[in-house]
Amino acid sequence: MRKIIIIGSGPAGHTAGIYTARAGFSPLLFEGWMAGGVAPGGQLTTTGTVENYPGFPDGVGGSELTMMMRAQSVNAGVDILTETVESVDFSKRPFTVKTSETEEKAEAVIIATGAIAKRMHVPHEEDFWQRGISACAVCDGALPVFRDQPLVVIGGGDTAMEEAMHLSKFGSKIYIVHRRDELRASKAMQDRVFANPKIEILWSTTLVDVKGDNALSHVVLKDLKTDKEYDHEAKGLFYAIGHTPNTSFLDGAVKTDNTGYIITKSGSTITSVPGVFAAGDVQDKQFRQAITSAGTGCMAAIEAEKYLLENPL
Amino acid sequence: MRKIIIIGSGPAGHTAGIYTARAGFSPLLFEGWMAGGVAPGGQLTTTGTVENYPGFPDGVGGSELTMMMRAQSVNAGVDILTETVESVDFSKRPFTVKTSETEEKAEAVIIATGAIAKRMHVPHEEDFWQRGISACAVCDGALPVFRDQPLVVIGGGDTAMEEAMHLSKFGSKIYIVHRRDELRASKAMQDRVFANPKIEILWSTTLVDVKGDNALSHVVLKDLKTDKEYDHEAKGLFYAIGHTPNTSFLDGAVKTDNTGYIITKSGSTITSVPGVFAAGDVQDKQFRQAITSAGTGCMAAIEAEKYLLENPL
Repeated sequence: MRKIIIIGSGPAGHTAGIYTARAGFSPLLFEGWMAGGVAPGGQLTTTGTVENYPGFPDGVGGSELTMMMRAQSVNAGVDILTETVESVDFSKRPFTVKTSETEEKAEAVIIATGAIAKRMHVPHEEDFWQRGISACAVCDGALPVFRDQPLVVIGGGDTAMEEAMHLSKFGSKIYIVHRRDELRASKAMQDRVFANPKIEILWSTTLVDVKGDNALSHVVLKDLKTDKEYDHEAKGLFYAIGHTPNTSFLDGAVKTDNTGYIITKSGSTITSVPGVFAAGDVQDKQFRQAITSAGTGCMAAIEAEKYLLENPL
Repeated sequence: MRKIIIIGSGPAGHTAGIYTARAGFSPLLFEGWMAGGVAPGGQLTTTGTVENYPGFPDGVGGSELTMMMRAQSVNAGVDILTETVESVDFSKRPFTVKTSETEEKAEAVIIATGAIAKRMHVPHEEDFWQRGISACAVCDGALPVFRDQPLVVIGGGDTAMEEAMHLSKFGSKIYIVHRRDELRASKAMQDRVFANPKIEILWSTTLVDVKGDNALSHVVLKDLKTDKEYDHEAKGLFYAIGHTPNTSFLDGAVKTDNTGYIITKSGSTITSVPGVFAAGDVQDKQFRQAITSAGTGCMAAIEAEKYLLENPL
């Protein structure tokens, strides 16, 4: 039996760990083992250089940053298990959390399991991941490798339009590749994109592969009306086709929206179950940055401490 | 004329700077000059070692962390002016921001001027600031110097009670010094404090001075009913008498609550004036941590970018 269990090991999970450990709760943190298809540390481990996490003037490697956060958790007194949580029982306190090897109870739980950017998994995608391919234009758009180069955005929603507008400040030309002949994005966003001379939409087109030497140089596109495939120059490829929050293990134990994101009380990490808190990308489809995730991890820790103070078992 | 002006130079201001600069906005940041009585960098510069900012396993100096954030801003392309903003005109866009030397206009403004913890300014307070005296139990309570030692909390509200409960996990005995003979704190919080054998309330008592050699060893208290002064052992002194947000220069240009904090839309940094955003402690009286401030600085940058996209001048 623990006071607090934390599920997840990205910036939100470890920040919650650091804060709850320093508050004297001896928390247990399940960091997962290839949970959501990524290593402990989450999406940040799939990132090359992080230039926008404040405190590192020359940037820091994504994996390096997660390792330092993990070390800080350990130093603060967090117990870490490298196991993936498979199910929970939040129907009564203490809450129960289960992996294939361990079952543990806690008075409060912080869920920080993150989300995974959707990718198309074309044949050579892994070869160029973070060597031209990214799922975050806000994070990576400003990198020198993309300056004055042709860039491709995959998607047709508001996020894809916003990312294309963002990238148009850096690239020479932005191509939005969209499989249909109309966009899901709002009319207002479409108008802005249509008015931007640097952006061109490749309608009824899909990505079938990527090419390059050390870094991405071309995407292979397919015209869905003619079935013709062709190479198209692109130094950057940005997926903007959404994210999948890692919430399936919850099996409805806390309320989620229709896309699986945990619903939290606005401006807080409080979920539909008193004593269960959610931090990081698992409850955030708007900002999705390492620094915002870490911020909400801290909020969850402070809110959990307050909850335990007011609701002793 | 700028796209974005940022006012403030703590974690929120510099994170907003890093993000807006990387988004190509060439922001101007007014870091202030002894604004709010502290150096550029804000409250963090008055902190010794920061153990809870994620990414620094062995802790980092408060001043060092602010210098690194500033360097990162500069590297990202933020223009910094070491001047204190004295007045603003948000009645029409572009907005106007004035110091004693400079007047500049911008299409969007991010306010991140922070808050200052209230202190009693007893005679020898400066000698022991961060050598036993703190205004943040959550930040500093876990430091080794306070373990199993007598600690004093000044205040009578919910925050003071929460800080005393938090400190009771570390100190040998916690004394709440309160000038009146009843508490402002909620009944529920009072009950918890009264039930905690490690906490004692010194009623109708006030702090008049502090003593020690290199570090704090005693507080000098005064019994307000007898006017008698006496030394009381204390290795830690925690002010929990509130904060003052740095918003007087706004002169009502954005909506604030009755204690001067900027009101933001819940879960966002949007203020009462479209195009003006607020991040960090100037709009947060609940969490007030470096990492939560930095998180909201990022949010402000992303929300400002979206606003400028949707509201071109």
